[in-house]
Amino acid sequence: MEAKSKGLLVVFSGPSGTGKGTILKAYLERHPQARLSISATTRAPRPGEQDGREYYFVTREKFLEMRAENALLESAEYCGNFYGTPRAPIEAWLEEGHDVFLEIEVQGGAQVQKLEPDSVGIFILPPSIEELARRLRGRGTETEDVVQNRLAAAKRELCAAEHYTYAVVNDTVEAAIEKIDWILGAERCKVSRNRKFIEGVLNHD
Amino acid sequence: MEAKSKGLLVVFSGPSGTGKGTILKAYLERHPQARLSISATTRAPRPGEQDGREYYFVTREKFLEMRAENALLESAEYCGNFYGTPRAPIEAWLEEGHDVFLEIEVQGGAQVQKLEPDSVGIFILPPSIEELARRLRGRGTETEDVVQNRLAAAKRELCAAEHYTYAVVNDTVEAAIEKIDWILGAERCKVSRNRKFIEGVLNHD
Repeated sequence: MEAKSKGLLVVFSGPSGTGKGTILKAYLERHPQARLSISATTRAPRPGEQDGREYYFVTREKFLEMRAENALLESAEYCGNFYGTPRAPIEAWLEEGHDVFLEIEVQGGAQVQKLEPDSVGIFILPPSIEELARRLRGRGTETEDVVQNRLAAAKRELCAAEHYTYAVVNDTVEAAIEKIDWILGAERCKVSRNRKFIEGVLNHD
Repeated sequence: MEAKSKGLLVVFSGPSGTGKGTILKAYLERHPQARLSISATTRAPRPGEQDGREYYFVTREKFLEMRAENALLESAEYCGNFYGTPRAPIEAWLEEGHDVFLEIEVQGGAQVQKLEPDSVGIFILPPSIEELARRLRGRGTETEDVVQNRLAAAKRELCAAEHYTYAVVNDTVEAAIEKIDWILGAERCKVSRNRKFIEGVLNHD
């Protein structure tokens, strides 16, 4: 049933400070077949960044052209720069059977799920607000005011969990990875994703 | 997040001959915390059957009373006998955190899922029609006519897969059990089943 089936588009999000980047990095190391979507941006590359690895670095004109041609799954503007998700590489990977992870901020992820109802929304949660505060403080480089502001922002972002199908608590990276495995395994068992197989059994002979 | 959470009601079905009974038996041996729902029936106990183990054996009057009081999750009549699923033991087990499996024929299972939108519908599929025919023939005790009739019935039952959320192919019992584990693990991660936890994180401080 799994053979030759399309990959899953995973919308991966959560408040800042929940460790979603760490989980995703570990998951991708464990699953070399999975792919991470690369965003396009109009901002200049920073030292060490490489076109097609961290980002696709494009001109403003090129970006606006892509957006006008519906070549971006979603796009947003931060601090005067555009960021967006090119649709073509994602669709090519999905067709080849790779699961594609889209790491995205909470509201953008909610939008993508609406546009792509076949996508799988996973929202990473902190085990508790205390633990989140400990992690934000743990960096040790911020004043208490900055920590409190970040905490308030994280709580606002937490409300967006409602727009996602699954919530995974980041107790430990290992436990979170196992849950993502369950979620993608279960999604592949969905009747809605196996209509061709079921029809194949039915229409035989 | 899992602690003290309610169990899952699993509506477990599939065409006859797919081996769903074998999978469920193996699953329950592996997961002693899971429970199998026991039906009530008005038919007489067969030799070796025990009240409260294979069935709750009840009188016709008692059955009709239970049905009138909405004490049955579903009920049906076969060959002049009533069969039904008592609601109370299921709800008690779910509250205690046990997952409860309801092994049921395909149409009854579709009904239960409509009545209980929080239930998890799993439909067992044969790997192919050839394999299903081989399994039906494998019993070796039936004429080819009987096998063909059963096969036609199984194909009609296969159409009901559409009413279930998940389909699990019975390639091997081990692989099927693993998929059921993924499905229940993923269901426990659903945002809709973790609202209290999320609100707890949000409303803390």
